[in-house]
Amino acid sequence: MTLAPGLTLVLGGARSGKSRYAEGLVEAAKLAGVYVATARDFGGDTEMAERIRHHRERRGASWRTVEAPLELGEAIRAEAAPGRAVLVDCLTLWLTNLMLESHDVEAESASFAALFSEPPAGPVILVSNEVGLGIVPDNRMARDFRDHAGRLHQTLAAKAERVVFVAAGLPLVLKG
Amino acid sequence: MTLAPGLTLVLGGARSGKSRYAEGLVEAAKLAGVYVATARDFGGDTEMAERIRHHRERRGASWRTVEAPLELGEAIRAEAAPGRAVLVDCLTLWLTNLMLESHDVEAESASFAALFSEPPAGPVILVSNEVGLGIVPDNRMARDFRDHAGRLHQTLAAKAERVVFVAAGLPLVLKG
Amino acid sequence: MTLAPGLTLVLGGARSGKSRYAEGLVEAAKLAGVYVATARDFGGDTEMAERIRHHRERRGASWRTVEAPLELGEAIRAEAAPGRAVLVDCLTLWLTNLMLESHDVEAESASFAALFSEPPAGPVILVSNEVGLGIVPDNRMARDFRDHAGRLHQTLAAKAERVVFVAAGLPLVLKG
Repeated sequence: MTLAPGLTLVLGGARSGKSRYAEGLVEAAKLAGVYVATARDFGGDTEMAERIRHHRERRGASWRTVEAPLELGEAIRAEAAPGRAVLVDCLTLWLTNLMLESHDVEAESASFAALFSEPPAGPVILVSNEVGLGIVPDNRMARDFRDHAGRLHQTLAAKAERVVFVAAGLPLVLKG
Repeated sequence: MTLAPGLTLVLGGARSGKSRYAEGLVEAAKLAGVYVATARDFGGDTEMAERIRHHRERRGASWRTVEAPLELGEAIRAEAAPGRAVLVDCLTLWLTNLMLESHDVEAESASFAALFSEPPAGPVILVSNEVGLGIVPDNRMARDFRDHAGRLHQTLAAKAERVVFVAAGLPLVLKG
Repeated sequence: MTLAPGLTLVLGGARSGKSRYAEGLVEAAKLAGVYVATARDFGGDTEMAERIRHHRERRGASWRTVEAPLELGEAIRAEAAPGRAVLVDCLTLWLTNLMLESHDVEAESASFAALFSEPPAGPVILVSNEVGLGIVPDNRMARDFRDHAGRLHQTLAAKAERVVFVAAGLPLVLKG
């Protein structure tokens, strides 16, 4: 599959191969890649630190990494440019960060989505976890989280040129 | 996508846009719409009351609303008619209501599904949550619930003219 | 849909109809079927024992059943042969068994997947639960489980001739 010039949204479950699929789009297009990480690397032996190292090794040296745990819209605006691809991994972690720091998630989601009312200056790929297909979670924060994620996905999908659902590493095109 | 004359089953996760997609089918067909709500509106400031108000505002005044938290088959039988569409939102809430009131869910599911052994008198759209794609839940009631939901979806899907899975507001046709 | 001569991977949620769909592939091909069960039948009135009985009755007498709660690769190697189909139900239970007995799941998954580097001697169908589309689970073991399952699905999907996602009893072809 080729990389769309505008916005691509890549959805998938945990360990679905969605990040690798998104990286493959950039590599197949032979574009320079900017990896926008929303994860916070506190170092140490945490699961998250391991995951970050694992992803970094896989991508190799040809990628530049930018960290944007909160100021995600600003990072994309700064990096999007013709001839290079911006890959954001992932939106759900960004939403988590906003919630943990008590931001107004609805407002920030809306202004993030507004970024894409015009096509970005170069290809942008947003990777996100689909989290709404299990049993209703017991706790309110988890329910709010999946509401935020679901709404953001709907808004972005409406603006995206291409939307892909990844399962077992295989893409299923929902749009485009 | 056009509205099938018989039974349409719309599945999707939480905040997947499945209700809005189903409403859009009715509006695009320029049919009168009967909204069969399985939610119980206790009023007040609960999450559920908020959600009901939100959905009601979106649909606008052209819809008639019927409440059927338990007697769902009866409501559909009474309302289905040529030239108007019946939209049930949602089956999973109906199953929850049956379980909470200790009904025989298997028996009621079977007699509900039997309604559709003949095509309904007018278009009927059943919206339901797909809840079986997460980790096995710890508690027995949640496991029973996803068993009931999964079995009902299979039975109805076999009888439906069209089955659509909605993710990020985008339809994926599974049948029809 | 016809049965592929090599490896078929069938993914789906709880009560999605994935087992029945896989059985239907074998029956439509009019092949002898070997059912490789990874579930442990401790007898009694447990949910699992009920589920095993239910599946066994549905399959009927034309199937031979082999139990392989742990030595799954060996069972497949022993049973795969031209003119008969091997159906494994399910991989996620096999992973659970490995974890409960403190096996090295990554190593066993890798050597299991290596079995399929060459096409098997006859059609093999692997059924597995997609478990990564809900909220991140609270406990580490559940998170590890969905990581193991997701990675195994990706590896097998890359080697499979056909990959099918089943929802509400309906197949969605992801590959092949």
